Amino acid sequence: MTEVSQEALSPELQEHLAQIKRGAEEVLVEEELIEKLKTGRSLRIKAGFDPTAPDLHLGHTVLINKLRQFQELGHEVLFLIGDFTGMIGDPTGKSATRPPLTRDDVIENAKTYEQQIFKILDPEKTLVMFNSSWMNEMNSAELIQLAAKYNVARMLERDDFNKRYKSGQSIAIHEFLYPLIQGYDSVAMKADVEIGGTDQKFNLLVGRELQKHFGQPPQTVVILPILEGLDGVQKMSKSLNNYIGISEAPDEMFGKIMSISDDLMWRYFELLSFRPLSEIEAFKTEIEEGKNPRDIKFLLGEEIVARFHSQVEATQARENFIARFQKGAMPDDIPEKELATQDGKLAIANLLQQAGLTQSTSEALRMIKQGAVKIDGEKVSDNKLEIVAGSTHVFQVGKRRFAKVTLK
Amino acid sequence: MTEVSQEALSPELQEHLAQIKRGAEEVLVEEELIEKLKTGRSLRIKAGFDPTAPDLHLGHTVLINKLRQFQELGHEVLFLIGDFTGMIGDPTGKSATRPPLTRDDVIENAKTYEQQIFKILDPEKTLVMFNSSWMNEMNSAELIQLAAKYNVARMLERDDFNKRYKSGQSIAIHEFLYPLIQGYDSVAMKADVEIGGTDQKFNLLVGRELQKHFGQPPQTVVILPILEGLDGVQKMSKSLNNYIGISEAPDEMFGKIMSISDDLMWRYFELLSFRPLSEIEAFKTEIEEGKNPRDIKFLLGEEIVARFHSQVEATQARENFIARFQKGAMPDDIPEKELATQDGKLAIANLLQQAGLTQSTSEALRMIKQGAVKIDGEKVSDNKLEIVAGSTHVFQVGKRRFAKVTLK
Repeated sequence: MTEVSQEALSPELQEHLAQIKRGAEEVLVEEELIEKLKTGRSLRIKAGFDPTAPDLHLGHTVLINKLRQFQELGHEVLFLIGDFTGMIGDPTGKSATRPPLTRDDVIENAKTYEQQIFKILDPEKTLVMFNSSWMNEMNSAELIQLAAKYNVARMLERDDFNKRYKSGQSIAIHEFLYPLIQGYDSVAMKADVEIGGTDQKFNLLVGRELQKHFGQPPQTVVILPILEGLDGVQKMSKSLNNYIGISEAPDEMFGKIMSISDDLMWRYFELLSFRPLSEIEAFKTEIEEGKNPRDIKFLLGEEIVARFHSQVEATQARENFIARFQKGAMPDDIPEKELATQDGKLAIANLLQQAGLTQSTSEALRMIKQGAVKIDGEKVSDNKLEIVAGSTHVFQVGKRRFAKVTLK
Repeated sequence: MTEVSQEALSPELQEHLAQIKRGAEEVLVEEELIEKLKTGRSLRIKAGFDPTAPDLHLGHTVLINKLRQFQELGHEVLFLIGDFTGMIGDPTGKSATRPPLTRDDVIENAKTYEQQIFKILDPEKTLVMFNSSWMNEMNSAELIQLAAKYNVARMLERDDFNKRYKSGQSIAIHEFLYPLIQGYDSVAMKADVEIGGTDQKFNLLVGRELQKHFGQPPQTVVILPILEGLDGVQKMSKSLNNYIGISEAPDEMFGKIMSISDDLMWRYFELLSFRPLSEIEAFKTEIEEGKNPRDIKFLLGEEIVARFHSQVEATQARENFIARFQKGAMPDDIPEKELATQDGKLAIANLLQQAGLTQSTSEALRMIKQGAVKIDGEKVSDNKLEIVAGSTHVFQVGKRRFAKVTLK
């Protein structure tokens, strides 16, 4: 059916649709989106963000990139900061470390967001909104009426609720209200489209339901995948230490991109690069024809660094990377090892000894002190450094000892 | 343990406790109640009522009588009208017949309550309250914080929710908020004791929980049984037509009480009479020694009629009843019959024919027209009268034909 209706689309609309669908896991409902695009009006594209102090990494930018694509197609981004629930704090009182945010915190965090997102988004086509604007006005009777529009059984179908309920873990009743509030945001914002990660699918669909209840056309939901971290397996996250922060220095950012596998490179091209898909396909052909994947990875690294810093710094980062490698004279045939961690981490001295790069941990510590130890070409100065499970790095001791170690 | 602590109580406190426990199914927690009584202060006794137009019957007065007992022991009654939810109406929109109550409706209904309850309660020791006073002030953030204090699994343990969830019937999420609001009322009212029927037990216990969360001593919960109707089996209710309304005329009220079984009479004595239990025990002895139960039932009938009308009218009602019976010359050995109903009812003409009191339904209709048919000594004028299942009445046709018919 989708195919049939697309055949009737103008080439321009087909191109728009292809761009919107690039990297997306699902578009619900595509036919409705096509109808909205056909009207030619500027659509209201919603995405919701946490009100806590943001420190975005490339994983977050998958979503922001999609917003930018919509802007390039002429639509307006409604960047929603969900400050209402953040200002309530943790009502269960279980988490003493989550005090409620003040209005000042929220404004401060919004500024930090803007500094970061406007490296990608067009400020002229971006409206930063706060759901406290409408939720603070809502009284308890209105919240009850909102809660009447959804039922318990369906809420318990949400994956995480379902697991917790079945395993006897507590779900506080207010947790059932949060998806409704998130959905109501779409009503208050008159969103035409909402973008979110796969983990948000349930909540995004609640938004559709509530809009119907309130007599609005339901928003189209664009579900994006969760970006894998540097390890290529687990999702990119700070706590797994497999991330690239968008505020990281050019050399760091470039080096981390160079550390990913060739497979993961294509994933990052799809989700993080703004190059047309046709160009990316051409890169693949070049590699098949013998080109060194490293040179294509350079292009990805430069594009990303340029986005968050500048083209000059990106070029410099590439040159620095090359110089480091030439000076390091890293051999082509580095032995690969797998080591086990203790509690998910391994201290650097133990790692070097277990990888056979030093005779003992005390030799390892001595070499670190002498500045003779490098990880991925970067000198190690902290002799208490711990390496986390799931990561792969090249360790170097002195001029000639190398090992590519994967921690499990 | 209860026994031990009671031994240490003064005779006066023991007497109070016995009065409070009279007819009660459960007192939770009795030890706490004893501590509260020991302080000697006037306790705040909460009971919650529907905000819809009240038309109370004796079933409702079981609870009101218990409130009166507390007043007689020096405590203060907080008569709560739950108008907040009533003013929201039916937020699911399913029931077109349940429009939201206006403030005027609520005030009007409160007046009607007062006219009825002050036949039992002491107005000097009664505070009529409306939960809209505090709930209208509550914003959505506060309601969320309230909802955080209880969890989904425990709410789903409530009997009716459990049955509906298991059988796939929908529970709207706002229904989970109502028990919390009812419980929060206890917090706002600083209730020491709450009284309710067995069907309210879950909600009353939520009140205890929430008071603890808000740093208040938890209310003692006094659970009262649901009064059986005239049939002695099903709960007294208007829809089952087995009730005695407190606004019914003296003769009607008296006649209905005289129609109950001797067993049910003792139940009514326990739950509806204000006579001391010792006196009621003495009645039982008198009957064992040969006294006609009818004469004891007269005492119950007179007490109830006097409560809602006057002693003069009560005496008159008894005399009218006796006169009717003597004129009716009801024999002592009325044959007893059981008849089946169709859809829970049987038309009077069919009943008379099936009971053998008339040859045919047309004879039955003719006899009704002539005024020759009586039910419990009362002339029947409506030839379309339907008798409901579960009732027992004496039917009389002409002077000599009698049958005591139980409809099944």
